[in-house]
Amino acid sequence: MTLIAKTTHHLFQPLLYQVATGILSTGEIAPSTREVLAHQRNAQVLLGEVTGIDLDAKAVTHEVLGRETVTTYDSLIVAAGAGQSWFGHDEFADHAPGMKTIDDALELRGRIFGAFELAELAPTQAERDRLLTFVVVGAGPTGVEMAGQISELAQRTLRRDFRAIDTSSARVILVDAGPAVLPSFGEDLGGRARRQLEKMGVDVRTSTKVIDVDATGIVVEDSDGERQRIEAKCKVWAAGVAASPLAGMLAEQAGVEVDRAGRIPVEPDLSLPGYPEVFVVGDMMALDNLPGVAQVAIQGARYAARTITDRLDGRQPRPAFSYRDKGSMATISRFSAVMSSGPIRLSGFLAWLAWLGLHILYIVGFKHRVTTLLHWAISFIGRGRSERAYTVQQVLGRRALQRISADEAPKLPEIAES
Amino acid sequence: MTLIAKTTHHLFQPLLYQVATGILSTGEIAPSTREVLAHQRNAQVLLGEVTGIDLDAKAVTHEVLGRETVTTYDSLIVAAGAGQSWFGHDEFADHAPGMKTIDDALELRGRIFGAFELAELAPTQAERDRLLTFVVVGAGPTGVEMAGQISELAQRTLRRDFRAIDTSSARVILVDAGPAVLPSFGEDLGGRARRQLEKMGVDVRTSTKVIDVDATGIVVEDSDGERQRIEAKCKVWAAGVAASPLAGMLAEQAGVEVDRAGRIPVEPDLSLPGYPEVFVVGDMMALDNLPGVAQVAIQGARYAARTITDRLDGRQPRPAFSYRDKGSMATISRFSAVMSSGPIRLSGFLAWLAWLGLHILYIVGFKHRVTTLLHWAISFIGRGRSERAYTVQQVLGRRALQRISADEAPKLPEIAES
Repeated sequence: MTLIAKTTHHLFQPLLYQVATGILSTGEIAPSTREVLAHQRNAQVLLGEVTGIDLDAKAVTHEVLGRETVTTYDSLIVAAGAGQSWFGHDEFADHAPGMKTIDDALELRGRIFGAFELAELAPTQAERDRLLTFVVVGAGPTGVEMAGQISELAQRTLRRDFRAIDTSSARVILVDAGPAVLPSFGEDLGGRARRQLEKMGVDVRTSTKVIDVDATGIVVEDSDGERQRIEAKCKVWAAGVAASPLAGMLAEQAGVEVDRAGRIPVEPDLSLPGYPEVFVVGDMMALDNLPGVAQVAIQGARYAARTITDRLDGRQPRPAFSYRDKGSMATISRFSAVMSSGPIRLSGFLAWLAWLGLHILYIVGFKHRVTTLLHWAISFIGRGRSERAYTVQQVLGRRALQRISADEAPKLPEIAES
Repeated sequence: MTLIAKTTHHLFQPLLYQVATGILSTGEIAPSTREVLAHQRNAQVLLGEVTGIDLDAKAVTHEVLGRETVTTYDSLIVAAGAGQSWFGHDEFADHAPGMKTIDDALELRGRIFGAFELAELAPTQAERDRLLTFVVVGAGPTGVEMAGQISELAQRTLRRDFRAIDTSSARVILVDAGPAVLPSFGEDLGGRARRQLEKMGVDVRTSTKVIDVDATGIVVEDSDGERQRIEAKCKVWAAGVAASPLAGMLAEQAGVEVDRAGRIPVEPDLSLPGYPEVFVVGDMMALDNLPGVAQVAIQGARYAARTITDRLDGRQPRPAFSYRDKGSMATISRFSAVMSSGPIRLSGFLAWLAWLGLHILYIVGFKHRVTTLLHWAISFIGRGRSERAYTVQQVLGRRALQRISADEAPKLPEIAES
């Protein structure tokens, strides 16, 4: 078994927002993939970005630092997930980073804490206001969690740390083009989440579209077509997702069309139409309107692996994947969350306890559970944030770096040579 | 009281090597300076790099993202420390990063773990050998600790994680121009440290000068003038230090000369000659051949602060700083260290226990002590490394980024505007 991945860590995305806001360290939500699989002696992990899949030759081409490697397969599971989408406005990304990777979270950590640092030095009230205005785009779970956490930093964590500014005067604005907060949770829970955010001082603006984003602000348009410019240094993009480009590559060879989010329609057994040995799982695949959530990916991966071993062992595989919805949850602030599972609808402290228990179960590895629990105690019971350190790179911004380094690659021998 | 610093964290440098080798998170050795000083209500922390000190106007100019601020003082303590020195070969820095900052440690984390990742994919034995050869320059405490840790990663931590390579075949070479390992510890302890490193498989080459460093290797010259090229992807520079450029700026105004390491000679009370209200403490100052170690800085800072408060309160300050040498220690691997304190000379497990106890005392803040202890248990008793995650930036390399971004600054509005 060969696992090809473009990072060396196994990322637990639902807690990225806690890395961005200084609660957890990167290691706690991104353990080494190799370490996770060390005891599975028949599994080899290879670092690499997949640049080509040849379905007829049954070969995957992957690359690292300009060097290509080809790996052939008998069965293939493609699970490259989804990245952030700025809905055709990739230029927004420089000013409003997404929340999909460790790099994203650390860059946002630098931007969020950095905004307070700069505000402490700002010579005018207008500049102070701009630095203390945070706009989060997207009112799904990630956006709600980010808005709640930034608000908590301002209201609680950082209050005693500054002298020239009152951090609790910071504004947090949550913007979404749709009419609801947490639409996938239904009207009742979404409404409760909205009220909880508003009680914390978050300015929730639904039915509000983003028209433009630049270094110093964001332009939004409400449902009456009224445009407003909000002066804000720090913007977070938690709005759209787009399936990995590998989806398009596979769809083209299989002669099928990807959907609006770039996902491949798959057979009921998660295989690629015409290629029963190729499975597509997780955020890249479209089947029965299943949502792009972790449980669909986890259960899909288990189903595909079972199908492959059934075939190898001469057993009849289950003919179709069936998804068991275990529900969903989102935290709003410490001690407050919403949760929906079957007929159960919870909000507030009880939902938060359920969130706590489940997330501890899903954190990979015992040791990470212990340090994570401790960091949670520090941040939820105390007011500390243990992981506020950020680097020069994080403040300069990764996208700026990548755009530049692509042009300058020949000047970087350490990178070009492998 | 105003504290001006160019990072937002208070860095505990002696444990940087543990961040570089995946044992500790950045937050554990670099807590927020603001958080440390939150309860000291008369202390304001300002983010900024000092660009000018006007001794006659008693004014400090500091800058962040192109914006200058001027802060005036009655008394001034300058404690900007020392940076890495490549002995006039700054071009080596791209290929052999130093070990002075959080950025350095994270960049080296990416390079060290990245070298093993690339080796797993290498198509030839020669390339595999080059990727699995690590050269550490400088046999002081940082160099010894890095060499010991990289060796431990290869021999112990990573052995079960790879399939194509045997990580225990990695070579770790420790190079120093001088004749001894840990010269400041004396011949006996230095010799014991050397034998301990050699027992772990480290190739210790003293009296060996570095002639050249490039992307794929390093050229060294032994005491007979014999030159040798060592093919090695990953190089660590732990050799020289140079005092902050602020030392030269102060020396020029005071009409004194800095020494070879760029340090300012100070009066016995640590004040700048001719400026009794200006104190210089730590690695930037030269007095009585005091070494550039943390204890000199800590005791010097305490002395300078006491002198200022004595003057304010009308008491007679102690006329001269006197340093009390508490000794020094360095770890070689888990369970093994060397320590020298007064007449006491310890090596092996006992010295390691002393190291453990003292470092726990010096880690700032109770919560960091608890998670640090846990991470140590994971790495020293178990074989795990909890903090192996690194980012795209870290792998691309910070220096390449900074060099490039300086040219491209106008393209980075987010950075240029504040």
